[in-house]
Amino acid sequence: MRYVLVTGFEPFGGETVNPSWEVVSQLEGSIIDRCRVVTRQLPCVFGESLSVLNAAIDELNPAVVIAVGQAGGRVDVTIERVAINVDDARIPDNRGQQPIDVPIVPGGPAAWFTRLPIKATVAAMRESGIPASVSQTAGTFVCNHVMYGLLHKISDSAEVKGGFIHIPYLPEQAAAHPGAPSMAAQTVKAALIVAIEVALRQTDDVKIVGGATH
Amino acid sequence: MRYVLVTGFEPFGGETVNPSWEVVSQLEGSIIDRCRVVTRQLPCVFGESLSVLNAAIDELNPAVVIAVGQAGGRVDVTIERVAINVDDARIPDNRGQQPIDVPIVPGGPAAWFTRLPIKATVAAMRESGIPASVSQTAGTFVCNHVMYGLLHKISDSAEVKGGFIHIPYLPEQAAAHPGAPSMAAQTVKAALIVAIEVALRQTDDVKIVGGATH
Amino acid sequence: MRYVLVTGFEPFGGETVNPSWEVVSQLEGSIIDRCRVVTRQLPCVFGESLSVLNAAIDELNPAVVIAVGQAGGRVDVTIERVAINVDDARIPDNRGQQPIDVPIVPGGPAAWFTRLPIKATVAAMRESGIPASVSQTAGTFVCNHVMYGLLHKISDSAEVKGGFIHIPYLPEQAAAHPGAPSMAAQTVKAALIVAIEVALRQTDDVKIVGGATH
Amino acid sequence: MRYVLVTGFEPFGGETVNPSWEVVSQLEGSIIDRCRVVTRQLPCVFGESLSVLNAAIDELNPAVVIAVGQAGGRVDVTIERVAINVDDARIPDNRGQQPIDVPIVPGGPAAWFTRLPIKATVAAMRESGIPASVSQTAGTFVCNHVMYGLLHKISDSAEVKGGFIHIPYLPEQAAAHPGAPSMAAQTVKAALIVAIEVALRQTDDVKIVGGATH
Repeated sequence: MRYVLVTGFEPFGGETVNPSWEVVSQLEGSIIDRCRVVTRQLPCVFGESLSVLNAAIDELNPAVVIAVGQAGGRVDVTIERVAINVDDARIPDNRGQQPIDVPIVPGGPAAWFTRLPIKATVAAMRESGIPASVSQTAGTFVCNHVMYGLLHKISDSAEVKGGFIHIPYLPEQAAAHPGAPSMAAQTVKAALIVAIEVALRQTDDVKIVGGATH
Repeated sequence: MRYVLVTGFEPFGGETVNPSWEVVSQLEGSIIDRCRVVTRQLPCVFGESLSVLNAAIDELNPAVVIAVGQAGGRVDVTIERVAINVDDARIPDNRGQQPIDVPIVPGGPAAWFTRLPIKATVAAMRESGIPASVSQTAGTFVCNHVMYGLLHKISDSAEVKGGFIHIPYLPEQAAAHPGAPSMAAQTVKAALIVAIEVALRQTDDVKIVGGATH
Repeated sequence: MRYVLVTGFEPFGGETVNPSWEVVSQLEGSIIDRCRVVTRQLPCVFGESLSVLNAAIDELNPAVVIAVGQAGGRVDVTIERVAINVDDARIPDNRGQQPIDVPIVPGGPAAWFTRLPIKATVAAMRESGIPASVSQTAGTFVCNHVMYGLLHKISDSAEVKGGFIHIPYLPEQAAAHPGAPSMAAQTVKAALIVAIEVALRQTDDVKIVGGATH
Repeated sequence: MRYVLVTGFEPFGGETVNPSWEVVSQLEGSIIDRCRVVTRQLPCVFGESLSVLNAAIDELNPAVVIAVGQAGGRVDVTIERVAINVDDARIPDNRGQQPIDVPIVPGGPAAWFTRLPIKATVAAMRESGIPASVSQTAGTFVCNHVMYGLLHKISDSAEVKGGFIHIPYLPEQAAAHPGAPSMAAQTVKAALIVAIEVALRQTDDVKIVGGATH
C-alpha cells in the first residue's frame, strides 16, 4: 500500500493550539484513493522539524508529502508555490533560535518550486466550496524552512509529489485575536482531503490563472 | 410560551444564498431557555422588509427580536451598536430601489441604539470560541434600514429586546470571492444561540471595552 | 469678515505628533473665499476638548466649523456622516479617563448628522486627485465626542455648517507602524482646503452614491 | 563617472500613469554620492522590458541598478527580497501576452536573491520617516520578470548591485480606487534617493529582523 504523509506543527508564537496539527491529526489512518494517510507532528523548530520530516519520509517512502502550517491572518487555504533558501525569523522558534538571513541548505538552490499541482488543487477546492488560492510566498520562518527542506529532500525522487499548504487560524484562536479571519476545522479538513486526492490523481498541473501582479 | 423572533434575509447583490437565512432557518422551532425560536425570511427590499418584520412582531409579541444580515468582507460576527435614520444605497435593492440620503422614518430620531446587551454577547461568544466584536455601524443599506425600523417599532415596549447581528460570507460564497474571509454555518449557528441565550438572561449590559477610536 | 474654525488634536495613544494638528495649524490665517481660517488645538480629553471648542465657537461665531482627527489605519480622508451619543473608550484619553458606554449629553438625541455637504466634498476631493470617502462611523472615542458636541452646540444655529473629518497617519508615523497606510501632510492640507471651499459654497449636498452595505 | 540606473514602468492595467515612472523620471541626471543617475522607462511587456533593461545595462555598465514598479494596494515602499523563475500573468501585459507558469529563463535557477542591502535600506527609509518594509514576493507578473532578468543578467558581475522596489499607488490613482492606500510622489522620491545612497555605501547588508512567519 502506498502512503501519503501529512504533517502539522506544534503550537508556536504564544498559541495553545496549532490548527495544522488539530486538523491533520484527524486524517491519521484515512484511506484516500487506496493510499493510507500517515500523519506526523513537527516541532516548530529550525532544523529539528526537518529531522523529524526526513525520518518519516525515509521510513514510509510516501507517494505524496503535504506539510501543513498555520498562517494567522490569512483568510483562505493557500497552496504555496515556492520555498526560498533562507531562514529569516521575525520571532524565535520553539527552541529560542532566531536565525536572520541564513541559508537553509548552504550552497543549495535559491528556491524550490512546489511539486504539487497547485492550480488544479485550488480549482478543486473552490469547486468544493472551500476558499483557496495560490500563495507566492511561504514566508521565511519554519514553514518555509520545512517546505524548502522537503523539496530538497525529494528533489532526486522524480515520482514523489510534495509541497506546503498554509491554513488560517481556527475560530477559537481568532476569538482571542479581534480582527483576525478564521476557518473551521471541518472546512480545513475537507480542503486537505481535496489536496490529497488531486495530488494522487493529477499528473500535470493545469494552466489556469493564479498569479499575482505583485 | 414566549417567543424569540430571528430573521434572515434573502440573497442580494448577485449571491445565490444569504448566509443569514441559511443559518437562521436552522433555528426554526428550537427551544432556548424555555422560549420558542420563530424564524422569518425578510426580502432585501427597502420598506417591504420592515412590513414583513413588523407583521411578525405584531403576530408573535416576542420577548427578543434578532435580525441577522450578511456582511461580506467582515471577518467575525459583529453585534451592531446603533442604526441611523438614513437609507443610502450603494447598490439597488432586490426591487431595483436605490434611495440616496433619504430618512427611513421622516421626523424620526437620528438613530436608535440597540436593545441587545452587546458587550455581554461579544464576551460570551468569545468565551465559546467564536470570533465576535461590537460594530459601530450597520451601514446604510437594507440591514441598517431593518435595524432602525425594528428599534423604532419596539421603542415603546420597554420589555422587548432587539437588535441586529452581521455575519461573514459562508465558505462557499468566499470560494467565489478570492480574498474574502468567511465563517462556517456551524460557527454562525453557535453564535446566534449564544446571542439568544444572553439576550434572554442578561438584563443590563456589562461595562467592558468594545469601543473604537475611529 | 466671516470665520472658518478648523480644529486639530494634540497627540494621543503614544504618538508624538497628531497629523490633524500638524496640518490644521498650517492653515492658520489663510483666506478662503473671503473667509479667514482660524485654527485651534483641542486636547484629546473627554469634556475638555468640547470646552475649548465651544469657547472658540462662542468667540468667533464662525460660518463653518471643521474638526479634524487622526484615524490611524484608514487609507484615505474620511468625511464623517454621523456622531452618536456615547463615549466608549478603548484606550484612556490624555487625562486617563476611560468612559464606557456613557452618554455624551445625557438626554440628548441618539445621534447628530453632519452639517457638511459630505457627498459634494468627497466628489470634489477625488476630482482634485485626493483619496477620500464617506465614513459611516466616527468611532466612540474623543473624535466622535467632539463631533457630537459640535453638532449639538450648533444645532440651533441653522446657518452654521459643521462636521468632522478623519485623516490617516502621516508617513513618519506609519514608518513606525509597519503595515499602516499613510498620507502626506501636503495631500491632507489640499483636502482640507477643498473641504472648506465646498462647505462655504455648497448650500445643499448632492445626491450621489456614498453609502455602505454594512 | 559611475552610473546608477533606475527604471520605471509605463502604465498598465487600465491606469493612465505609473507611479514608478512618474517618480523615477524626476531623478534623471541627479548626482548622488558622485554617481550620476540615469533613468529609463520599461514597457510593461514580458520580454521587451528585459531587452530595454539589458541594453541600458550594456550601455552604461552601472554600479547599481534599481528597477521600480507599481504595487497597487500595498501601503508602503517594499524592497523585494527574491525573484522567481516563472511568468504567471493574472492579467495580460501591454502587448496582450498572458503567459501562465512559464519559466523566464528556461533552465535558469529557480530564483535569484536581490543584490541590494534590503534590511539596511528599510532601516534607513524608516529613519527618514518613510514607511517601508521587506517584501518576500515580487509577484509573478512583469515586475518579477524584470527583477529575475536583471539579477540573472548581473549574476556574473560580482561588483554590480541590483534589485527591485515596489511602490504604492499615487494619491491621484487611489482617488479612483476607493479603499486603496497611496503614497505621495515626494515621499516615494525621497525613498528612492535613500535606496540609492544605501546601495552605494553599504557593502554588506545588516542582520536585522525583516522576515515573515508566512
